[in-house]
Amino acid sequence: MENKYHITLVGSGMIGAGLAVNALMNGHPTIIYDVIDLEKVKKTVQDVLDIMVEAGAITGEKAAEAASLASYTNDLDAAVEKADFVQECVPERIELKQSIYRQIQEKRGDKVVICSSTSAIMPSVLQKDMLYPKKILVGHPYNPSYLLPLIEVCGGPDADQEVVELVMNIYRSMGKEPIYCKKETEGFIVNKLSWAAMDAAKKVVLDGVCSVEDIDKAIIYGPGMRMAVTGQIMTMSLGVQGGLKAAAAKYGKEPNEADIILGDGVDAEIAARPKEFGNIVEDVIKFRDKIFAVILKEYGKL
Amino acid sequence: MENKYHITLVGSGMIGAGLAVNALMNGHPTIIYDVIDLEKVKKTVQDVLDIMVEAGAITGEKAAEAASLASYTNDLDAAVEKADFVQECVPERIELKQSIYRQIQEKRGDKVVICSSTSAIMPSVLQKDMLYPKKILVGHPYNPSYLLPLIEVCGGPDADQEVVELVMNIYRSMGKEPIYCKKETEGFIVNKLSWAAMDAAKKVVLDGVCSVEDIDKAIIYGPGMRMAVTGQIMTMSLGVQGGLKAAAAKYGKEPNEADIILGDGVDAEIAARPKEFGNIVEDVIKFRDKIFAVILKEYGKL
Repeated sequence: MENKYHITLVGSGMIGAGLAVNALMNGHPTIIYDVIDLEKVKKTVQDVLDIMVEAGAITGEKAAEAASLASYTNDLDAAVEKADFVQECVPERIELKQSIYRQIQEKRGDKVVICSSTSAIMPSVLQKDMLYPKKILVGHPYNPSYLLPLIEVCGGPDADQEVVELVMNIYRSMGKEPIYCKKETEGFIVNKLSWAAMDAAKKVVLDGVCSVEDIDKAIIYGPGMRMAVTGQIMTMSLGVQGGLKAAAAKYGKEPNEADIILGDGVDAEIAARPKEFGNIVEDVIKFRDKIFAVILKEYGKL
Repeated sequence: MENKYHITLVGSGMIGAGLAVNALMNGHPTIIYDVIDLEKVKKTVQDVLDIMVEAGAITGEKAAEAASLASYTNDLDAAVEKADFVQECVPERIELKQSIYRQIQEKRGDKVVICSSTSAIMPSVLQKDMLYPKKILVGHPYNPSYLLPLIEVCGGPDADQEVVELVMNIYRSMGKEPIYCKKETEGFIVNKLSWAAMDAAKKVVLDGVCSVEDIDKAIIYGPGMRMAVTGQIMTMSLGVQGGLKAAAAKYGKEPNEADIILGDGVDAEIAARPKEFGNIVEDVIKFRDKIFAVILKEYGKL
């Protein structure tokens, strides 16, 4: 089977079931392991498939095809017997996670790569005292995991780049968009932005500037829509004629080191985009506007 | 003409032309005033109409219809002769803006409401020494103004609520989503969140955690998509079983005052949503997932 992996999900809450459905939708034979009643596990996976059909993400036919590739077990050894890749989605308890990794690595040696869905525990902590520490990474999804493509991969300070590349490719083959977080840092990458924005939002409401409803509406119809299309730094760059490096000149200043690093970064980012999303500023703007129009139609605004 | 206003745009850069096109698309007779060559002004408006057609936001027929409602002048007195509403989009110079307001109010008395597109000058500053200060407000759009619906309205400490309501309704009749900013505060509402997120993004890049490209991708496919659909505070609430008020309980704590204010705010927000966007949590999630699926198809991810 070309580019198909044997994938095992350990834990079948909405996050685990969501990622299982991503694997199944993309044709990977997938085993879902949990300690609870398997009928319950099957129901959660089927619920996610139903959500995907209802959302218009997949057809009913495709959902049935995906379901046929799933198997279920309460036996961890059996669950990982042929696994290339294990995604662990159990509660945030280090001992629980490590006991699972220990059992998997005792059974399968270094033949399987394990990623944890943890949003808070650093890979070096998970790797400590394990048999094959470099085969344990963090692969942090975003809620709702069945639809949002983002996975933050973090391998810790001793990461093996070959293992990282393999994990990134496995996620891509599951339809995800993996991002590599080079350093261990609280919240990995994007929670830092979400937390900072949330603190600012809290302050606005508590200061009586506007209601929760108004701030959410304001975000949805303004910066949120922009961030969904051009991210954070590119958005800010597109807001200034000539990009981030030109912003300083507007105030008669030379760009500082940060302006140059960020400005060059955006230039590189735009040049590296797939042509159909625009790889020069003018075409990025055309792509952005097209996506805005599509979203606004869904909101009944056009 | 029912719900149609005579609208005048003062200034015809991309922001002014964009808002002019919003007025025209919604059937308002609209005059665009500038001091430059009128052929140039017409071209900018036509460029925005062409962008809207290319983005799939409006049909060519609709664009032609909109264009037919536009008129152009270099004479400010003539531009505002019948105006109900003036949107001022000139450079950020207080004297320039005030000299325009003075001329308009000398000509038309208090019969016209003026909103400034300023992103930085507070309404009380714009109102100072004006003939009819309460008829001057801030109506701050978001780039690209022709597509993003957000307008932040701020009337300052002496705002007349009837004037505020009128302005909000005029914006709604232009297809915009106006938000009322109750207090004068730097950046009004949403720039505070954008600036906080941008600072966090800068730090991540400068600390070598990931590249500009990776952080933008991470935002697009994760929190950005969420913010485009459920805003900032509702997104955070949907991420916790039971909502924001339940989050404290997870750690064995009582919710504090902020948890209660924000939690109650989200509850009120959800209950007030139009039924088709979901007005209970389960239906908000269904609506959210449907929009995610639509966006992901545009990205070639489904």
